[in-house]
Formats: sequence, C-alpha cells, structure tokens
Amino acid sequence: MDGKRTEDWGIRIGRLERGPLNKITDVPGVRVGHSTIRDGRHNTGVTVILPPGDNPFRDRLVAASFVHNGFGKTAGTVQIDELGTLETPIALTNTLNVGAVSDAVAAYMTRICAKDGIPLYSVNPVVGECNDAGLSAIADRPVTAEHVFEAIRTACADFEEGGVGAGAGTMCYGLKGGIGSASRRIVLDGHPYTLGILVQSNYGSTADLMIGGVPTGEKIARRIREEECDQGSIMVILACDVPLTARQLRRVIRRCSVGIARMGSYIGHGSGEVFIGFSTANVLPRSAAADVMTISCIREERIDALFRAAGEASEEAILNSMLAADPMTAPDGRRIRSLREFMPLE
Amino acid sequence: MDGKRTEDWGIRIGRLERGPLNKITDVPGVRVGHSTIRDGRHNTGVTVILPPGDNPFRDRLVAASFVHNGFGKTAGTVQIDELGTLETPIALTNTLNVGAVSDAVAAYMTRICAKDGIPLYSVNPVVGECNDAGLSAIADRPVTAEHVFEAIRTACADFEEGGVGAGAGTMCYGLKGGIGSASRRIVLDGHPYTLGILVQSNYGSTADLMIGGVPTGEKIARRIREEECDQGSIMVILACDVPLTARQLRRVIRRCSVGIARMGSYIGHGSGEVFIGFSTANVLPRSAAADVMTISCIREERIDALFRAAGEASEEAILNSMLAADPMTAPDGRRIRSLREFMPLE
Amino acid sequence: MDGKRTEDWGIRIGRLERGPLNKITDVPGVRVGHSTIRDGRHNTGVTVILPPGDNPFRDRLVAASFVHNGFGKTAGTVQIDELGTLETPIALTNTLNVGAVSDAVAAYMTRICAKDGIPLYSVNPVVGECNDAGLSAIADRPVTAEHVFEAIRTACADFEEGGVGAGAGTMCYGLKGGIGSASRRIVLDGHPYTLGILVQSNYGSTADLMIGGVPTGEKIARRIREEECDQGSIMVILACDVPLTARQLRRVIRRCSVGIARMGSYIGHGSGEVFIGFSTANVLPRSAAADVMTISCIREERIDALFRAAGEASEEAILNSMLAADPMTAPDGRRIRSLREFMPLE
Amino acid sequence: MDGKRTEDWGIRIGRLERGPLNKITDVPGVRVGHSTIRDGRHNTGVTVILPPGDNPFRDRLVAASFVHNGFGKTAGTVQIDELGTLETPIALTNTLNVGAVSDAVAAYMTRICAKDGIPLYSVNPVVGECNDAGLSAIADRPVTAEHVFEAIRTACADFEEGGVGAGAGTMCYGLKGGIGSASRRIVLDGHPYTLGILVQSNYGSTADLMIGGVPTGEKIARRIREEECDQGSIMVILACDVPLTARQLRRVIRRCSVGIARMGSYIGHGSGEVFIGFSTANVLPRSAAADVMTISCIREERIDALFRAAGEASEEAILNSMLAADPMTAPDGRRIRSLREFMPLE
Repeated sequence: MDGKRTEDWGIRIGRLERGPLNKITDVPGVRVGHSTIRDGRHNTGVTVILPPGDNPFRDRLVAASFVHNGFGKTAGTVQIDELGTLETPIALTNTLNVGAVSDAVAAYMTRICAKDGIPLYSVNPVVGECNDAGLSAIADRPVTAEHVFEAIRTACADFEEGGVGAGAGTMCYGLKGGIGSASRRIVLDGHPYTLGILVQSNYGSTADLMIGGVPTGEKIARRIREEECDQGSIMVILACDVPLTARQLRRVIRRCSVGIARMGSYIGHGSGEVFIGFSTANVLPRSAAADVMTISCIREERIDALFRAAGEASEEAILNSMLAADPMTAPDGRRIRSLREFMPLE
Repeated sequence: MDGKRTEDWGIRIGRLERGPLNKITDVPGVRVGHSTIRDGRHNTGVTVILPPGDNPFRDRLVAASFVHNGFGKTAGTVQIDELGTLETPIALTNTLNVGAVSDAVAAYMTRICAKDGIPLYSVNPVVGECNDAGLSAIADRPVTAEHVFEAIRTACADFEEGGVGAGAGTMCYGLKGGIGSASRRIVLDGHPYTLGILVQSNYGSTADLMIGGVPTGEKIARRIREEECDQGSIMVILACDVPLTARQLRRVIRRCSVGIARMGSYIGHGSGEVFIGFSTANVLPRSAAADVMTISCIREERIDALFRAAGEASEEAILNSMLAADPMTAPDGRRIRSLREFMPLE
Repeated sequence: MDGKRTEDWGIRIGRLERGPLNKITDVPGVRVGHSTIRDGRHNTGVTVILPPGDNPFRDRLVAASFVHNGFGKTAGTVQIDELGTLETPIALTNTLNVGAVSDAVAAYMTRICAKDGIPLYSVNPVVGECNDAGLSAIADRPVTAEHVFEAIRTACADFEEGGVGAGAGTMCYGLKGGIGSASRRIVLDGHPYTLGILVQSNYGSTADLMIGGVPTGEKIARRIREEECDQGSIMVILACDVPLTARQLRRVIRRCSVGIARMGSYIGHGSGEVFIGFSTANVLPRSAAADVMTISCIREERIDALFRAAGEASEEAILNSMLAADPMTAPDGRRIRSLREFMPLE
Repeated sequence: MDGKRTEDWGIRIGRLERGPLNKITDVPGVRVGHSTIRDGRHNTGVTVILPPGDNPFRDRLVAASFVHNGFGKTAGTVQIDELGTLETPIALTNTLNVGAVSDAVAAYMTRICAKDGIPLYSVNPVVGECNDAGLSAIADRPVTAEHVFEAIRTACADFEEGGVGAGAGTMCYGLKGGIGSASRRIVLDGHPYTLGILVQSNYGSTADLMIGGVPTGEKIARRIREEECDQGSIMVILACDVPLTARQLRRVIRRCSVGIARMGSYIGHGSGEVFIGFSTANVLPRSAAADVMTISCIREERIDALFRAAGEASEEAILNSMLAADPMTAPDGRRIRSLREFMPLE
C-alpha cells in the first residue's frame, strides 16, 4: 500500500472483478520483463511481453492489431492482420530504436528455434514504441540487442510498473508516465477467464486528464503549467485466455480506446496509438496431420463482457502507469512530477 | 431555457466555443429536416441532413465514413470510402426501412437532376439507421418515400431535437433518446470555422451513463430498474466548413468515438455505430476543363483543433438528444423516462 | 453443346477439376434464381443466390466481403465485415434499384421468420448491383418486390446464365455480358470440397479483352468499333463448403481479382467491383446453450488450393457470362454483339 | 540489346508509351542504388529508392501503401496509412534484415537532418523485404548499416536490374528473379507525366508463368522440374510525378496487382505482396506560415490512365527483373536458371 496502484486510493474503474495481481500476467503463462537505461543522458529501455510457452514461433497464438491513430512506427502489424497469429514476444521501446529491437527479436527467435531444431527462415517481430525524446537523447538510439535479451531473460509474473523499461522516459498528461497494467475476470459457461492489459503511456495534455470520470487535469495544470499539446503515443497490449478468432479479438482490442477516452484524451494527431492483442486459448501448431482443424471461440452474443473488460482494464492500466511512476529530473534539469504527488484528489 | 439543452443546466462539455445555434446547421448552408410517424403502434420516422446548395449530385463534397462498430445496415459507405465524396442528402431512419429510404433518396435525386438537365444513371444514397423495435412495430416497415420527401421539404437551420424524425422511437441509456446536435468554433489563419455534429442516439445501458464525467447512471438505474444490456446503435453525422481531404476528414470523424466513450459506453456488440462526415469547403464539380485541379486542405499539424471539436460536439450532441427528448409511453404501455426528469443531477 | 460455355470451345482455364454442373450450385444446397424484365424499354432484373436451408437468418453462415473498387452501391457489407456472417439471400440488381431490392429482401425475411416463429427486429439484406443504363431506362427503377420474390421462388441448381435476371442489361468488354458461373473441386484430408463463383459481368473495354491469356480484344474491337472506356462493374459471389473462418474466407475471395485481371481488365475507375463470399461448413445458430463453441476451419498452410480455385473459377465464370449471353438490340436500336459470334478465336 | 529487357524481345506489355529509360527513375529526381552481398554463402543485399531532393524528412511527399497479401514484414506502413506521407528513402532487403535496415535508415536520417539543422526525434523508415532463404543463409542476417549507406551513396538514374542488391538472392517462377523496373508516360492537360515501377520479385511457381498473356510456364516447368508451390513475395514500389492525394495514390497502387496476375500468379498464401507508392508533385514542408494550404490533384474522372500505367508497368517490371537476372549457382550447388535461357519463346 504505497499509493502506486489505483486500488490503493479506493478508486474503482468499472464494475468487473480484478485478477489476483491485477496485471496482464494474471493471464496464465504470460510474463513481462524490462531492461532500463538510466545514465543521465538517456531514460529509455525495453519492455517485453512473453506469451505462454518457451517458443511462440512453434506454438503460434491467435492475434490481432488495431491502429487507433497511426502516427507511429510499430513493426509487425502487416502479418498479424493477414494471418491473425503471433509468433514472437512483443517488445516495446523508444521510437528510434524499433529497428534495433526488431533485429534483436529476430536474433532471439533464430537462437531458440535452432535450439528446438526448427530452421527459421522467416519470423515476424512485433515491436511497438513511444517517443521519449523529452526525457532521453533519443537520436543516440541507445538500445541494443543486449537490452532486449535482458528483458526477455528477466521476465516474470509480478513485474514492476511505472518508469521502467520502455516506460523509463515517457510522459503522460504532462506528468511521469510509463508501464502500467490491470486485469479483469470474466465467467463463461461457469468457468473463470482473464483479460489483461499492459500499456506504455506517453500522451495527453495535463488539462485534459480525467480520473475515474473526474476532470482533475485543469487543477493540476494550474499547478505545473505544462504545455497544452497532446503529443506522444500509447501502446496497448492485451492478453486473454478466452477462446477467440482473430476477427473477434480485433473487436475486443478496439475497445481499449474507451479507456483512453475516459482518461481525457482526444486522440491527438501526433500520437501513435496502436493496440495489439493475443489469446492463449488456441495454440496453432506449425505441423499437423490434418488439413481441416477445430478451434474454439466465444459465441458472438457473449462478447460484451470482453468489451467491458478491455475498456476497464485499459483505463486502469493507464492510471496505474502514472501512479506507479516516480517523479524524476529530466536531462535538461526540469522536474517531472508524478501523479502520486497530487493524490488524493480533493 | 426549458432544460432541453446542455447549456440550460450549466454543464460545460470540453473547452471550445459553441456556435450560435449549437447545432450542425451552424455550418453555413447545412439544413436538417424531420418526418415523424406517431400512431400508437409506430414511433419512427426519417431525419435528413442536407449539404449546402440545391443539388449535391452536381456539386459533390468531400466525405468520409468510419465504422466504429459494424452491427448495422448503413447504406452508401462503400462508395464514400473509395471516392471520398458525398452526392446525396444523408438520411436516417429505422433498421428495417433502410431499403425504402434509400429507394426514396434515389427517386428524389433522379427528380432534381432531371430538373437540372442532368441525366442520372448512378447515384449513391447514404442512409443510416438505428433499431427502434422497442418502441415501434418495426417489422411493419412503416416509412415510405413520402416521409423522406417531407423531411427534405421541411429542412431548416433551427430544427427540432429529441424524439422526432428518425429519433421518434430510439432509446439511449435506458431513457428516451433521439436526435441531438451541437457545434464548435475553430479559428484557422485568423478566420472562424465551424464543425457540427448530429446524432441519432439509441444505445447504452442505464448504469453506464456518465454526464460531464460524472457517473450518474447507477443512481438512475436504481430508480428505473432498466436492463443492463448495451444494445442499439448510434449514428453520428459530422459537417464542417474546414478544408479537408477525405483522408483528413476520416481522421476527424474517428474522434467522434471519444464523445461516445465519455458518455459511458463500452461500444456494445449489438450496436451499429457508424460515423459519416462531409466538408463543405471544396466543391467538386462533375465537369471541368482541366485534368489537374487544386483543392485546399488543412496543414496536418493544425488538425488537433478539429479532433477536439469532434469529440466535444459528439458528447454534447448525445446529451442534447437525451435532454430534448420528452418522456413517452411505449406501445406496450411501458413509460419511457426522459433524462430531464432526473435533472439537475445531485 | 451450344457454344454457351467455356468447355464447349475446348478452352481450359487453370488446372483444377470442374464440378459436375460447373456452377456455384455445385456447392451442396446453394440455389440461384432469376427474374427478368424485358419490355423494350427495360432490360434488367434480379438474380438471387440462396444459401442452403430454408432460413438463413436462423442458420447463419460465415461470410466475408472485399471491395476491389468501390464505385458501387452494394448494401450489407458493413455488418458482414464486423460479424463475418450472412443472414439473408444475396440479391443482385441494377444500380438504382438497390434500395427497392433491399426493402424486398427485408420483407421476405420478415415473412419467413414469422413462419418459423422468430420475431425479426433486425436483418441485414445483402444486395449488389451493376449499372445497366446503356441497355435499360435505369432512371425508371422498374424492379419491384415481386421480382425479388419471383427470383427466390424459382431458384434452382441448374440455373440459366447470360442475359437473364440481373444480367439482362449488362455489357462486358463492349459485348453482351450477364450472369456466369463456374466451380472447382478441391480435396482436403481425402474428401472432396467445392468452391463456386457467380458473376454479374458489366465492365471492360473491348480492346482489353483476353481469353485464356490470348489478347483477343483488339481484333474484336476493330470489327465492332466499341468505345474504349472501362466503365461498369462486376459483382462476384463466392460459395464454398470448405470450413473457413471469416478472416480466411476474406483472403480467399480477394483472389477473385486474379480472374478479372486475366480477362484483361485494369480495374477501371468507374467500376463497382465487389466480392462477397460465404462458406456453408459452419452453421452458426442464433441460440445455444454454451458461451464457448467450436468451429472447423482449414489449416492456413493448405489455403493455396482455395486461392487457385477462386481465381480460376472467377475467370471462367466471366467467360461463361459472355458466351452464354445472346446478342440483343438495345432500346436505342444499337445491336449488341455476343462473344459467341466471334468464336472460335482464330 | 543483350536480351535483358522486355523490349529486346519485341514483347509489348499494354499500350501506353514507355519512358526514356523505361525505369522508375524516369520520374524526375528519383534515384535507385544497390549494395550486393555475394560471398558463396550469402546472396542478398539492399536496394534503395530515393525520392527527389536531398532530405525527404524536410520535404515530405504524398505516399500510400496497399497490402495485397500480408505474409510479410514490411516496416513503416502504419504511419503512411495514417498521414499519407513519405519522409525517408524506401529500402528493400531480405526478410530477417528488416530490423537492421530500418535501424540504418533511422541512422542515416538522423545524420542528414543534423546536417540540415533539423533535430530529429521521430522518423518513419520504410523497409520492404523478400525471403531469399533458398539462395542465401538468411539466418545469419548478413546485411549491416554499411550496406544501406552504400546503396544510398551509389544511387543513380540508370541503375542495374536483375540479381543485384535486394534481388541478389530472389527467385521468381522457379527461375532467377531480382530487381526490375519499367515506366509509362501519361498526358494530362497537354503535359507529359511519368509513372514508374520497381519490383523485387520473389514469388510464383514455374508452371503458372505467363508472358505477355502466353502460358509459357508449363513448358519451362517440364524442362526444369521445379516444385509447384507459390511461395516468396513481391515488393512493388511506385513513383509518379502526377499530382495525387494519398487516397488517389492508394487507388493507383492497388492496380499493381493486375501486373502480378497477368504474369500468372494466384497470390500465394506464403507471400508478402506489399505495394508502396509516392508522388513527387506536392512537397509538404514541415513548417509553413498558414494553417490552410493548397495542393494539386488529378480530377478523379481522369485517373484511369494512371490505373492502366500501374498495371502495365508492374507487369513489365516483373518481366524485366527476370530477363535481367543472370543464371547462378546456389550455395547448395543447384543451378538456378534465367528466363533469358528460355528465350525466345517458341
């Protein structure tokens, strides 16, 4: 109870039940790792989301992407949209390091596939990004393959939030942003399922900030005198263990936009807002005896529970990313405040 | 000051200036007309949005569409998406009368083009819909061509809102919905421009309702005991006189989703949420001497003001649709309440 | 052996085996019906493609649409794209009668659902069109609901091709076009499956025509002196009994473009080229006990056979539409030639 | 007249006039450069297409992308689709080096923007790929930033075609593929314009090959006994100096599919077929005095000439890529034949 999470402040976002960790890793088998660069000049890094299992190329999952605003450099969506599958970890980093991180993910996959005796000729790294140029000398492109490997190596269920990994240098509503997560439980046919969200938050102007519906931003803006412009980006990663087709999953991840709007954003022009989701319910093997196969999916008439879960968890994940982030000093000496410093809201 | 508009209750949605009527018709030349059917068994009708001028087929405008959730029957989006132009009035009606209304719009265009000496071989009627089956015997398909012609004939700038025209039988957040509108002013290069929104509101579960950020719905839900399910639809029509390409306009209309989310919706499965927009700034004539032409458009870096205007005006238009709607008795005897009966919010 | 089909002329399109009728109705349960209007002033009508079973609303099928060029008025694609399902027959007609035909399909569905005790509040009529203004007084909008009902009533497996139904007044490559069909067999897991195509052909300039790869059009063009402009449209309907998700089906129907390109088209601007497909393999009932269900689908690695089948059958269906069409005299006295009059190609 | 181009063999593709070089560089200011890796184990490299001017970030151009089949890893399309602009050279390489090449393009842009005094915080590298694993040890990922810089440095108008740069290790219809190009002239308002195409060809099964409509592939297949499977990819880059909006340009580049279909492909599943285009007619500066600006574009009714040019030039560019490619020996000792060895076609 250090005030770093929404629940610490008694704020309820929506009405569905939270998962035990209230993180994307409540989805069984999902792990998250960070590698953080903090050297005075740079505040940046890598965050990876690992699907269950030890080789996502061999055991592909159903996936989908949705571009809410495309002023961004996310790699890997072309193939996700065509085939509806995920075959690598998902990595997040800064805008100018997408290429290096994508290259490192290819290297990693080559290595683990070699270990599994799978010759790898083609793989689709999925890499998202936010622009942390305000707090980090982005043009140096400081992220290397080693950072990606470290983030993968250290991935776990109870990962850190706030200004770590790919969130080390991001800002949200003029305050410190970063990595945040949340989860929701859903019951289908009497069995519990979980939907989780992880965000890299880096968007919004202070005056627009709303918390649990309350327009808090204007008051904060008067105290910190931040500029108005809604720039930056937000990456939203969704995981769930509900059986879904790629079409259904795409419908679900679109609802992440609800959480962003509820936090006060108008989806600014200069923002890369990209949502990527995967479901762990159907594993699609590379080789199989039969030409025709069976997959499980939700009856469309029951999908509303997932829509609500995606919206609620996205809103809470953004709020968690801000509450978990510590205040910090920018390379140019500016002090970046944490939302926690303004809590509780009067 | 009859409590039928957001401004009557001192509620401020966003921060941009409203237009003089605070309606879509603040965009010069735009007119709106209704034809309402109320006969005990049916509560339905037609609402038309007329672009400026007397023949939109001859003087085409830049247009765009965006499907927020496609459980709907809107006609005309295929051609809008390909060519980026509008060549008819936009008509709204109930779900099962889209065909009849589309046919009537074709008839109307044939007639006015004949009058203008333009042989009409092809025309793309744009018709949106919401499902008013809860308050109207929809399977009778009671709307005829005459209703469409009447709506066009009576179109004006200071049109009625609430339970009229295509909004006669719609419900929003378990209360009476209908037609609502709002507008915002934007200044570019020192000149004023206007963006206006008209909605046909027919979605949402009571408990989710938020007004100006305040989660009002749960209290109201306890008083009216409405069901939970977020069904129905919302059509959003956007007009502006800002010069935009079709690509830019599509970016602008996508931001209407912000207004819907702010009102508390999670974008339900059973909902046709379709946004259609047009800009009156560039008229695209059918015949011209030259192969290459010039059009004006906004510098992309200035488009944020429009994004904000689209979000604010959409939220306020939905609220206006609910405040303007009178309570009514359904054909089955149920009393449908108006949001106005619950105002002011404590 | 009257020269009305590709096989009569020894032309082989592709390499896959044809079905027994070499028509879309080789897919078990699919039927096609026409209603033709020929009264001197009008040459137009309606063609319907009926999915298996007696009530497609109750027994929904997986469906997908793809807009190859969107200068067209096809109704119903918004919902197909969102939900991936078909719930009505597919009807084809002329450009200005889409509204009337859509209304008639709604009427038909209301009636059969009432018979089955299903209250119908919402239904998504799927209606495609081509512009037959060159051979028919299109502005009269002569098609009525009765024509739709007649086409449905007379639907059968061994339907007529050429200048009938919605193809009564269409032209293709400057010659008489119309309705054409073809099918291909595919073997998966040792079992035979069928993919069938039906086209309404109404596009292309004579000089561009290619038959089985041979650029025949220039010779024909010299003999008939038709104009150059590639206007008009083509509707392509695909049916198959292969198990597919909506995403997979959309990939398959995109390959119909290959057949159109092989016939010599450059996909003209003034053309509505819309593809709609459905698979009969998974029936999606309206009501079910469970929230999670299983569906069958093809392993993605086996989908190439379907791609080839879609391309081949589309090319042959267009050719069949032209070979089956009789020459005719236009209302203005022009004689419209049949491709058959130029066969065999030297 | 060495048989390395379509015109050497008297083959006419389409009917429009070719440009002077019959290459994409006929569009004024466009240059192309290669860097080739050939070391026994690797046959791969980089090809870059440079837009006019010395800094595409400062002088952005209108751009568009279209994914014909998305089994590919192309980077940069998310932002192109949103903003309709190009701000870097376009680079092509092998599948597993997209990340490294993207990183190198970011490095290059950082450097030239620094030289121009533009602080670069965000840039969108556009990188396409084909899979040359059959002729190159792709898992080594041998391409480095130096190769990218070399390709940029050596870019010129009269560049080499065939097995060079990103085409060093590609195969097309079971024969040697590579880089190919072609161009077409169009006259608008009495002025000449140029549309050019560059392809990286790496797809198709031998038996499907068609040349100028003639189904040549089966004969060749009998002689070389290549496997059937249509794998691999094709990247198509389109440049033109015709004024177009991004929406219009997207319509134009979609027609590149016609050329691919005419060469005999059914658009195989395992193929990344991505088209990217830019127009040099409107330069979109980063900073400007006014909020509203003017751009020129084609009247939509005149766009058919561009559609035809895109289809013709794509078909011819693929053919040129095959004719220009020399036969070679694969690392595993297989001899890869050149189409030239089978010419002239009997």
